[in-house]
Amino acid sequence: MTEEIVVIPGDGIGQEVVPAAVDVLQATGVDFEFVEAPAGDHVAAEGGDPLPEETRGLAASADATLFGAAGESAADVILPLRDAVDSFVNVRPARTYPGVDALKPDMDVVFLRENTEGVYAGHESRLTDDVTTLTRVVSKSASARLAEYACEFAPEGFTVAHKANVMRESDGLFRDTVQAVAEERGVETETALMDALAMHLCLRPEEYEVVVCPNLAGDVLSDLAAGLVGGLGLLPSANIGEERALFEPVHGTAPDIAGQGVANPCATVLSAAMLLDYLDYDEEAQTVRDAVEGVLAHGPRTPDLGGDAGTEDVTGAIVERL
Amino acid sequence: MTEEIVVIPGDGIGQEVVPAAVDVLQATGVDFEFVEAPAGDHVAAEGGDPLPEETRGLAASADATLFGAAGESAADVILPLRDAVDSFVNVRPARTYPGVDALKPDMDVVFLRENTEGVYAGHESRLTDDVTTLTRVVSKSASARLAEYACEFAPEGFTVAHKANVMRESDGLFRDTVQAVAEERGVETETALMDALAMHLCLRPEEYEVVVCPNLAGDVLSDLAAGLVGGLGLLPSANIGEERALFEPVHGTAPDIAGQGVANPCATVLSAAMLLDYLDYDEEAQTVRDAVEGVLAHGPRTPDLGGDAGTEDVTGAIVERL
Ligand SMILES: CC(C)[C@H](C(=O)O)[C@@H](O)C(=O)O
Ligand SMILES: CC(C)[C@H](C(=O)O)[C@@H](O)C(=O)O
Repeated sequence: MTEEIVVIPGDGIGQEVVPAAVDVLQATGVDFEFVEAPAGDHVAAEGGDPLPEETRGLAASADATLFGAAGESAADVILPLRDAVDSFVNVRPARTYPGVDALKPDMDVVFLRENTEGVYAGHESRLTDDVTTLTRVVSKSASARLAEYACEFAPEGFTVAHKANVMRESDGLFRDTVQAVAEERGVETETALMDALAMHLCLRPEEYEVVVCPNLAGDVLSDLAAGLVGGLGLLPSANIGEERALFEPVHGTAPDIAGQGVANPCATVLSAAMLLDYLDYDEEAQTVRDAVEGVLAHGPRTPDLGGDAGTEDVTGAIVERL
Repeated sequence: MTEEIVVIPGDGIGQEVVPAAVDVLQATGVDFEFVEAPAGDHVAAEGGDPLPEETRGLAASADATLFGAAGESAADVILPLRDAVDSFVNVRPARTYPGVDALKPDMDVVFLRENTEGVYAGHESRLTDDVTTLTRVVSKSASARLAEYACEFAPEGFTVAHKANVMRESDGLFRDTVQAVAEERGVETETALMDALAMHLCLRPEEYEVVVCPNLAGDVLSDLAAGLVGGLGLLPSANIGEERALFEPVHGTAPDIAGQGVANPCATVLSAAMLLDYLDYDEEAQTVRDAVEGVLAHGPRTPDLGGDAGTEDVTGAIVERL
């Protein structure tokens, strides 16, 4: 069976790392067909919508989409794309690798970020010349759907991040719903205030394995974790919906190095491994992860990791190890 | 002139570290009169309001208040107290000290946290059985007042944290207002997305000196900074209003060690130094800071810093160095 994958490189290094990940996917032997679609600043610059309706439509009907990055238009591209695949959770693993410098060498945490509401629901008003409001939305149904995913993902238990001492009703509903679903499923949970968690992740990351977060908390805590494992160059992510999914590196367009052929493709290749997992090519996914790990340990490495190899060298080395 | 200070030890180690800071203040030679007032879980346990009206009233009329910590009732105590002194900014310095282990030995960042609005304005509704909302408030006036303080505090420039790519109207107003005030005053600013900043603080904290933040962003980023400098045991803070102010360590009640006489008093003593600064005893403030720095470098140290001294030993050593 041919697997049709929509591919949206976007802007900046997206144009370099997405083709790299496509090369790796092709080398796995799975029968893929790739449909490329445009999005991002370069489309807007030509007078188009940064997320053209056709691109949105392709993502909304494909089983799986691989996205790179978008520049200034990032929010206008990635948020509607996450919505197009009806993704309710953003899975963000943050781990260290042998051979890669990290502030916290023992970190291996997966953030399960609520992907539909919180401040991202984004109803804002300018009430007066002085005052603006934003209506943050938290629902029992979205919290429960996330919790069910979390119980499948982490049957051995997880941490629930929240700020219910201040956002009593809304984050209280989030925390209580997630814990109630977990209790029904016999899955253990502990809770953590998001501010305290930011500190504890710095001090004792080895105490955390899976952290279930409201949307913005997941955004911030996963970027913090990226800092602790040595930067965004290695962090993949998956936006999972009931029927489709979208995979993207956590990093952005890196305008300072774009076009030079030195971008680190690992985050996107690891996102492609999550795509393989999602489509049930578990063995191929593991092979890709092992290959990336081998290259990180033994080189070649791109400049962000202290090496002087280019994107193509690293990609070639990953493919060779498959 | 006698300076009247309201003192609210609160719960847990608050009962140990506040008296320690009072000892240090008394040893500075300034003519203080201390008025102690109750608040916290232990008051609620006796059937009272965790923040008795009389305590609130004392803080609302004193020039300066020193607070310790509160337990379960923290939000019901500290948020109304911040409000009682009409504090518009929470000043949170996070720095490393010679002799104290830190993930990031070069960190020396002050967070200026908006202290009146954001999600803390806290209008929540349960719309249906499924849906809750929280109305986040951001005003031009509060943003401008914070910006004016920031310009006085950091005439050499500062960073403005925000998430205006998602909270366009509200954090957009915050960012734009702070930058406009700074521009009028000839103060340079740069902006940073709060998620990216969480990562950059881990990777290159030496690039930041003063960070101006919306309320919740300041809460989370300052706790993250605490993690990078080695924990909350050393972080003081000041809630500054137009006419009065409230000083408190960033840490909580530490129930695991409360009552054992081993709590680290440094965060509260450093908060007392901020109180001295606020009342224009600049020289005494510096003397206290130097004394704390001397003790951190040469001991004695409490167990959280790897030592085996008690609160009283450390306090005595600080007083000796004045
Ligand atoms: C670009 C932005 C809207 C996005 C987000 O806030 O989710 C980004 O920070 C991310 O984490 O993917
Ligand atoms: C106790 C809580 C309400 C408080 C806050 O969120 O401001 C605390 O985390 C702090 O930072 O002082």
